[in-house]
Amino acid sequence: MDNHRKSLDTIFQALADPTRRAVVQRLGLGPASVKELASPFDMALPSFMKHIGLLEACGLIASEKTGRVRTCRIDPDGMMLVQLWLEQQREIWEGRADRLTDYIENRMNKESLDE
Amino acid sequence: MDNHRKSLDTIFQALADPTRRAVVQRLGLGPASVKELASPFDMALPSFMKHIGLLEACGLIASEKTGRVRTCRIDPDGMMLVQLWLEQQREIWEGRADRLTDYIENRMNKESLDE
Repeated sequence: MDNHRKSLDTIFQALADPTRRAVVQRLGLGPASVKELASPFDMALPSFMKHIGLLEACGLIASEKTGRVRTCRIDPDGMMLVQLWLEQQREIWEGRADRLTDYIENRMNKESLDE
Repeated sequence: MDNHRKSLDTIFQALADPTRRAVVQRLGLGPASVKELASPFDMALPSFMKHIGLLEACGLIASEKTGRVRTCRIDPDGMMLVQLWLEQQREIWEGRADRLTDYIENRMNKESLDE
């Protein structure tokens, strides 16, 4: 659980940057080389590599080097953690909405009995 | 669009902390006072208030002071932004999966015609 929590910390931290979110979005279309990923950004390669390093460290993407080309791809497990956390929040929220509906319905039934 | 992007930066930043995620989770059950929200944490009140301030600044929660009691509640718009971003990624990802299926089916049809 503590590992899970720490993963969410670093994943949300990684997603708190527009360049890194754009990289995740581009990789959703399929694997790409670092050179291709970097091309839309007006950024020195070492700075861009820091973003790639952070995305890889938190488990949102994976990369592999063949010769001089590093190819990146999405790691679905990282995205799944975010999705699960959000679904958990929605379930809590909807559970509350259900309880509120029950409460209102009970109250309305009670009121109609009281009439 | 730039505002939207900046909001996602600060929202993901806010969610990159276990205390702040726990507060969001607790508020999913319904509004609560700052005192109640702080009680599970072994933390000085000024430190806790910084977390509340960050959650409020990024639009994940809202608060209102009545007398000496500050009551917090979820602001659904903030959570919606995260949800929308994730759905967008999933659509890109699924679009890709569809295109891959089309490609494989076309290839299989072509191969059966070639036989």
